[in-house]
Amino acid sequence: MPALNETHDLKLRSWVSSANATDTDFTIQNLPFAEFRRKNSDEAFRGGVAIGDQVVDLAAAQGLFNGEAAIGAAACAEPTLNNFMSMGQPVWSALRLALSRALREGAAEQSSLESCLIPQAEVEFSLPCTIGDYTDFYTSVHHATRVGKLFRPDNPLLPNYKWVPIGYHGRSSSIDVSGQEFKRPCGQTKAPDAAEPSFGPCKRLDYELEVGIYIGKGNDLGTPIILDDSDEHVFGLCLFNDWSARDIQAWEYQPLGPFLAKNFASTVSPWIITTEALAPYRAEFSRDPADPQPMPYLSSEQNSAEGALDIKLEVLLQTEAMRIRKEAPVKVSQSNFIHSYWTVAQMVAHHTVNGCNMRPGDFLGSGTQSGPEHEEGGSLLELSRGGKESFALPNGEQRTFLEDGDAVVMRGWCEKEGVARIGFGEVVSTVLPANQ
Amino acid sequence: MPALNETHDLKLRSWVSSANATDTDFTIQNLPFAEFRRKNSDEAFRGGVAIGDQVVDLAAAQGLFNGEAAIGAAACAEPTLNNFMSMGQPVWSALRLALSRALREGAAEQSSLESCLIPQAEVEFSLPCTIGDYTDFYTSVHHATRVGKLFRPDNPLLPNYKWVPIGYHGRSSSIDVSGQEFKRPCGQTKAPDAAEPSFGPCKRLDYELEVGIYIGKGNDLGTPIILDDSDEHVFGLCLFNDWSARDIQAWEYQPLGPFLAKNFASTVSPWIITTEALAPYRAEFSRDPADPQPMPYLSSEQNSAEGALDIKLEVLLQTEAMRIRKEAPVKVSQSNFIHSYWTVAQMVAHHTVNGCNMRPGDFLGSGTQSGPEHEEGGSLLELSRGGKESFALPNGEQRTFLEDGDAVVMRGWCEKEGVARIGFGEVVSTVLPANQ
Repeated sequence: MPALNETHDLKLRSWVSSANATDTDFTIQNLPFAEFRRKNSDEAFRGGVAIGDQVVDLAAAQGLFNGEAAIGAAACAEPTLNNFMSMGQPVWSALRLALSRALREGAAEQSSLESCLIPQAEVEFSLPCTIGDYTDFYTSVHHATRVGKLFRPDNPLLPNYKWVPIGYHGRSSSIDVSGQEFKRPCGQTKAPDAAEPSFGPCKRLDYELEVGIYIGKGNDLGTPIILDDSDEHVFGLCLFNDWSARDIQAWEYQPLGPFLAKNFASTVSPWIITTEALAPYRAEFSRDPADPQPMPYLSSEQNSAEGALDIKLEVLLQTEAMRIRKEAPVKVSQSNFIHSYWTVAQMVAHHTVNGCNMRPGDFLGSGTQSGPEHEEGGSLLELSRGGKESFALPNGEQRTFLEDGDAVVMRGWCEKEGVARIGFGEVVSTVLPANQ
Repeated sequence: MPALNETHDLKLRSWVSSANATDTDFTIQNLPFAEFRRKNSDEAFRGGVAIGDQVVDLAAAQGLFNGEAAIGAAACAEPTLNNFMSMGQPVWSALRLALSRALREGAAEQSSLESCLIPQAEVEFSLPCTIGDYTDFYTSVHHATRVGKLFRPDNPLLPNYKWVPIGYHGRSSSIDVSGQEFKRPCGQTKAPDAAEPSFGPCKRLDYELEVGIYIGKGNDLGTPIILDDSDEHVFGLCLFNDWSARDIQAWEYQPLGPFLAKNFASTVSPWIITTEALAPYRAEFSRDPADPQPMPYLSSEQNSAEGALDIKLEVLLQTEAMRIRKEAPVKVSQSNFIHSYWTVAQMVAHHTVNGCNMRPGDFLGSGTQSGPEHEEGGSLLELSRGGKESFALPNGEQRTFLEDGDAVVMRGWCEKEGVARIGFGEVVSTVLPANQ
């Protein structure tokens, strides 16, 4: 994995003063990547790096760097990050180091770099890269158990769960960046007591709190990525809301899995937090001795020592009524990626062990990241106990599933004693009424 | 649908004499598209159209056309057909008509077009377009019933099958063109009597005989393609072998569907047979009155009158021993796309009814096209009755599932009295030994 180095130093301070705030997501130790342009402009999208409340425009700044950092910055000037992502850890690290040095208090580059800053409040984002293939995993054993109980009270977890990092292919065409608005999907559903299915707008629309994983360097068909090499292939992480139509899913998903219940919309946060930035938040990965231990291709000392990631996650809801009254979104649950039953490295190793090839920009969803407690459910399906219990919002509104006009906000961040805070920003998206 | 017009006329003859042979796939009434270059060259791939045993090089020929045909031909000069596919039926038809007229006996264009011909024997192919998303359907009720029986003898067909065109997302990165060679996949499997799963090369490697469907013009997120508009969005069809690892699938597929059992390789035939070329082979689509009738969004007079397609299909096998002795591939089964329980239009309408967007070049697999008889099984899983019965090849070899070195060949064609024959060519691909 990328070693801890000077870019992680807690003592670093930036001449961009907003980056030194104790509650900012975008400290100088973070330096995440996105594709952006000025809001409501017809400028080309280009790569940028967040620092405090600003964006470093890498198309404008590329001339300030040398060597591999310059090669990386030039690739970031393109309208997608795919080329940069394909270049691998040495180039990613070189650009990160150069940015860290140029943004520190006292840096000689300050005066030239100042003209390359644009306030985040003045930009809009696109998807950071072309996503070739999107795979969704199912790595929260708490989510799998709680959802499984709704269908199979006596046998919630299927026999393969603790052996196989369960995953399935998703749809990339309908993935968009934070700010996405989408119509409530229509489809076939069948009530348990109905003789026949019926057609209409989804009645059990849900969000899923996930971590998204971007592949950087790909692999050739027939050549698996081995577990301890996966860091070389994972560019970074984001937040991911994998919208789900539970009633459509219940009727369609046998025997080949979810389809129209999922592919109407999925939303990513704009910033990619790099694997290197996350290095201080690596955590031990272990298995209950009573559980099956991972097979050899999913097991290594490195993965056990630091395979997990301590990323705090939360979900907030802002109804239309709240938005009209300018009330802030309210928190409905919180969780942590550390609960994941499989590590990012295990997802990558498993996905390619059969020879499947990955390409730069390919995307993995972690699956809904629910924690062990009911209040840590990463979906309304869990919080409403399968739609059986509504819950009250502070303004008195009730929810079991999502209503039209609801906006869902997800946030993520890492913090611990003695280490700089880094944050993911947020992903927000809004449900529009169905086609009629 | 594209009307029958002068390009379908049985009496047309081409000055490319091989196109007038009674057994050629590539008559002047066919005119399918591919991306090609000279074999073992570093030329750029460009679009071509098959005529007899030749390819019309559209990059070389583009100057011969006018109006919309010229716009189409210029787009075909690119290294993928995505732009051409996005242009829609009027441009596709204009280029088809211009090619038909230029290739007819007596055409004034003959002398200039002759220099744009390259023998098919001298070219190699790439994927015809960038495939953004790939979806696999499950439209053969005979396949679904026969496979279902292996797992659930008393209840082979799930309750949703006759209501929902069942589909799931596949992996686009591992789709390649005819000629693909791939290593036998490794993965987790679990024998029914084993206490725990084990890891190793797949023991039940299978092919799936499918028809592939390329989307031409896309749709916006939130705007479904209605049933009778689907012809405007379907560029054309090909043959498709969706390789499957049955033992990996059996262990991994619950509850989210097939994953590593499918994404190690999938192979398409090089030529795309256009929706317009297939017009004479449209056929009535009807449902057994005892079956549920399609819901309104899946039902129209046009779909009933001509939604089905009469495409003959066959699978051949050539073992390594046969290849060494220069023995031709032997037929193992045959079927017809007319058995499909859902039409192409229904697949497209269903896929987008929830607002899911499709992009030019997106790809649908029909699912294994098995016919009603045992001998019409489109997979070895069916022909071997779940691996329980091996069958003998003419040279004395036995097969239940595929062995290393086996090459699978699929062919497809349309023919009937009073209409010109059109063929799909073939898709061939070979199993290599697993990584050790």
